Amino acid sequence: MPAGMQYLYGSGEAAAISIQAWNALTGYVEERVRQRPVSGVVLEEDATLAAPRFASCDRKPYAAVFDVDETVLLNRGFEYDAASGRPYEDARWRAYEITGGTTTVAVPGAKAGIDALRRLGVTVIFNSNRAAANVEATRVAIERAGLGPAVHGETLFLKGDDNTGSLKDARRWRIADRYCVIAMGGDQLGDFSDLFNAPATPAARRSAAEAPAVAGLWGRGWFVLPNPVYGTALKGTLDDIFPADARWAPEP
Amino acid sequence: MPAGMQYLYGSGEAAAISIQAWNALTGYVEERVRQRPVSGVVLEEDATLAAPRFASCDRKPYAAVFDVDETVLLNRGFEYDAASGRPYEDARWRAYEITGGTTTVAVPGAKAGIDALRRLGVTVIFNSNRAAANVEATRVAIERAGLGPAVHGETLFLKGDDNTGSLKDARRWRIADRYCVIAMGGDQLGDFSDLFNAPATPAARRSAAEAPAVAGLWGRGWFVLPNPVYGTALKGTLDDIFPADARWAPEP
Repeated sequence: MPAGMQYLYGSGEAAAISIQAWNALTGYVEERVRQRPVSGVVLEEDATLAAPRFASCDRKPYAAVFDVDETVLLNRGFEYDAASGRPYEDARWRAYEITGGTTTVAVPGAKAGIDALRRLGVTVIFNSNRAAANVEATRVAIERAGLGPAVHGETLFLKGDDNTGSLKDARRWRIADRYCVIAMGGDQLGDFSDLFNAPATPAARRSAAEAPAVAGLWGRGWFVLPNPVYGTALKGTLDDIFPADARWAPEP
Repeated sequence: MPAGMQYLYGSGEAAAISIQAWNALTGYVEERVRQRPVSGVVLEEDATLAAPRFASCDRKPYAAVFDVDETVLLNRGFEYDAASGRPYEDARWRAYEITGGTTTVAVPGAKAGIDALRRLGVTVIFNSNRAAANVEATRVAIERAGLGPAVHGETLFLKGDDNTGSLKDARRWRIADRYCVIAMGGDQLGDFSDLFNAPATPAARRSAAEAPAVAGLWGRGWFVLPNPVYGTALKGTLDDIFPADARWAPEP
């Protein structure tokens, strides 16, 4: 059993850190709604990570934008299938989008968090790289987990809705045209900005996430869910992850 | 390379979720100090997870209590050594406690968080299962990462300080006798209460963390740092983690 799967799908620790993210998010949104912010947390089209600027709120209604997989849904069925060591195949994942919904459960804390947001009058919007062609199955999976509604083009945006592929910025900008987005949640840095795709090495990408201009957003507008099972976080050789100054051996 | 090590020691996602925990913690503590709470977040000796009751604050000074390893320090040197697949050996870990300090770095967000707590007048206390016999090396490692001071018996509690072994409740109660503990942080459920050791299966332990009486504490007094590399979270067989209703196969 891969340790990351034991952690994410089986442990109390992962349940706790997920609930923590959702609790922090709802507390943050409650406070922001009270303050009536002048800008949201979606980066403007010409912003950089070094100089982040955010889409303005004007009199737009509030929204919160979430990734779907491993952010609001745990894909137990697909990962059971992968736990035997089967390598990722896109066609198999797309088949899972269509028939896997009965094996998914909500991420711990997600239902309570999403319910709380809606009670605050905040529109909950999903921005996922599931295929637009499979929209009906994805809508049903979200609603089956108690997280709906999700209406394509209004509160559900998918890969294939535009011509930018797996990038999510264009969809975010489209959402920010209509809403004051006061919080975002995801398990991949690309769920917050496509600018995180630019750094070429794991160390540079980690530095980008830790940079002072960005660090203040984590847990304050941008909310991260744990995922040590797949995705952009799982990169790097032994030399990348443990550079020379990180190495230890016992004294002889 | 184990995926959990890529995630924890190398990824922007893990840096972000760690900074998020520390940001949420400092925001929470700021608010609690303003509210002057009547009780803290250390469970009383006769409390249960189903009926949590917390040590009272009276006029005690404020403190926040943290685990050390993978909560405030990343043990890159020991995990580099383990990344080749070497199984855990207690003697090797104890040697690392003594000579490994130069390979550790602070968890992303920990230094800023701990500095902020001290500025708020909150005493920062470490409660670790590092060996009391190695106290001097542990003190130096904490201070080298910019997280000190740590004074044994005052702001640093270790395994061997009492006769309860790796259990941490007795140390927590001792701290709560002198302080109003308004926040705790750790990467293992045992960093919050030894009661989490009772459930016999991963599923029961996860349920304990998700139970309504406890769920409200995550991110609101109890703050979890990610650790998919070692510890109590990494348990369970394929059958434990993916029960029958979690299984999927594509249609033939």
